[in-house]
Amino acid sequence: MKLASLKEGGRDGTLVVIDKRLKRAVRVPKIAKTFQQAIENWQHTEKKLLDVYNTLNRDLNMPGCFDLDEQQLAAPLPRAFQWADGSAYVNHVELVRKARGVKMPENFRTDPLMYQGGSDGFLGPNDDILIESTEWGIDFESEIAVITDDVPMGISPQKAGKHIKLLMLVNDVSLRNLIPGELAKGFGFFHGKPATAFSPAAVTPDELGQAWKDEKVHLPLVTILNGKRFGAPDAGVDMTFNFSKLIGHAAKSRFLGAGTIIGSGTVSNLDRSKGSSCLAEKRMLEILAHGVPKTAFLQFGDRVRIEMLDKEGNNIFGTIDQEVKQYHPPGE
Amino acid sequence: MKLASLKEGGRDGTLVVIDKRLKRAVRVPKIAKTFQQAIENWQHTEKKLLDVYNTLNRDLNMPGCFDLDEQQLAAPLPRAFQWADGSAYVNHVELVRKARGVKMPENFRTDPLMYQGGSDGFLGPNDDILIESTEWGIDFESEIAVITDDVPMGISPQKAGKHIKLLMLVNDVSLRNLIPGELAKGFGFFHGKPATAFSPAAVTPDELGQAWKDEKVHLPLVTILNGKRFGAPDAGVDMTFNFSKLIGHAAKSRFLGAGTIIGSGTVSNLDRSKGSSCLAEKRMLEILAHGVPKTAFLQFGDRVRIEMLDKEGNNIFGTIDQEVKQYHPPGE
Repeated sequence: MKLASLKEGGRDGTLVVIDKRLKRAVRVPKIAKTFQQAIENWQHTEKKLLDVYNTLNRDLNMPGCFDLDEQQLAAPLPRAFQWADGSAYVNHVELVRKARGVKMPENFRTDPLMYQGGSDGFLGPNDDILIESTEWGIDFESEIAVITDDVPMGISPQKAGKHIKLLMLVNDVSLRNLIPGELAKGFGFFHGKPATAFSPAAVTPDELGQAWKDEKVHLPLVTILNGKRFGAPDAGVDMTFNFSKLIGHAAKSRFLGAGTIIGSGTVSNLDRSKGSSCLAEKRMLEILAHGVPKTAFLQFGDRVRIEMLDKEGNNIFGTIDQEVKQYHPPGE
Repeated sequence: MKLASLKEGGRDGTLVVIDKRLKRAVRVPKIAKTFQQAIENWQHTEKKLLDVYNTLNRDLNMPGCFDLDEQQLAAPLPRAFQWADGSAYVNHVELVRKARGVKMPENFRTDPLMYQGGSDGFLGPNDDILIESTEWGIDFESEIAVITDDVPMGISPQKAGKHIKLLMLVNDVSLRNLIPGELAKGFGFFHGKPATAFSPAAVTPDELGQAWKDEKVHLPLVTILNGKRFGAPDAGVDMTFNFSKLIGHAAKSRFLGAGTIIGSGTVSNLDRSKGSSCLAEKRMLEILAHGVPKTAFLQFGDRVRIEMLDKEGNNIFGTIDQEVKQYHPPGE
């Protein structure tokens, strides 16, 4: 099943069921007006939404349906009560440290890194990335995220997997030059992580078929920068912590409310021929190879596309396609 | 004006207007069903809610009103899209560092510390603090927080103050023994900050009268531990960053959605006779004085009360009154 949210009807958008090929959509106000409502009542809404999805796939002209315009889409959850982003591709973490000349602590292989992200307003898949200054070091991070229902506090990672209800792609926009000073203060990210963008569709794990295994997505995550392929590492390879473990980690000392989004962190493969999922990693590799980075961070006018194709070449989640633009803050 | 949320009607509770003395309440479904709805439409709801408040204060038996039972209250925002907690009482930060033998960086006096907190489920003022193990080092942190309407990205601290719409008290429950390992990883708090509790009422700044000045609350914040006064530092004294500065800091690289909660961090005075607002600070003072801490962290059965009285001795926000209880996680 594939779901999305239209930018209409208020801050939480309007839930739509979309067909497998992302061509047609239908509002479902009798089942749930918003995505948040649907996930909060998943035990009641899932089957009803699935019935609509099956009908829509059989009849792309079913009553009430219309052409899907991805420009009109918000993030599936236009805002959320929780967005917690892991860093499950430890290879990426190690590389970043290596370039800084710092050894990665051994417990990073057993104890996931995770930060609490801002969730009060997400970017839709085609929304501009508005940043005040390129001096802040604008970067993308291509990731995968899951959406959970209610997760009890202290759940074991073995049991946490059943709370994964939907998956999305993520552009975890990062401001690299603001991060070192911020992390040095010890309280984690704040300025360094502006609004995050999500794919047009959130899809149930069964949509991935064989590619969903061991709570990992075994397909390449493709990033295209200004029309050129930048990287396509396989999200199922080198993922040290699967989504069950990430959820279990997040729930250690707290309950997770339905609609919680848990991210994988930047997808990264040890096989360098696969390319990277963020500029920072490419720059680290350049530093390790040449002593200095050659690749610049994003400039205004740059365009980032993130998508994932199935074995048949079909776009699973739709495409995140964003342009970086300058933001002008309000005057004094 | 004073507002609260009943634990009824769903995850976001039911908004009630309560009288100045916190005795009576009235539901206001025609104005806003939930606190979140009220703050999102504040330019329309504020005056209407104020009319109800004024009527209720004149007539404690106005139609539809009833006795307020604080046991039935959720946090004013039972959950929120953003909870960002500053650390504005730099004295507290310096003390914690001093006890560790570390000098506080000078920029901590000009650049606020702030962390992104979990906001998907808050504790009501009388809800138990459920924690798996006392070995995690359970502590309270008595704080003040503001609720904002929509704040534009990049707003100047000078202009940010006008976005403060309501204030609350906070118990920012902390797990001290989980924090050092977590902060050492560099991504900020996660396990160390379980669910946060808020006061029964959220009140508009005018309710503080002369005590609301320069975007600070100039009154003692009283903490009572197991029936004994633990501390009552003045929240208006030694606050290095006022709430305008904290909001401006939070909004540097992002828009803040209506209903964002910004916290002051643990209230702390240089005048040690005022006592502390968390056990950790008391322990730090003991370490500095005696080399070892004498005060234990919270045990199961301990009870923490947090409240603020006006000059006439009236309780402004109602009382946070919580017992620490053992949580038993679900089995394998």
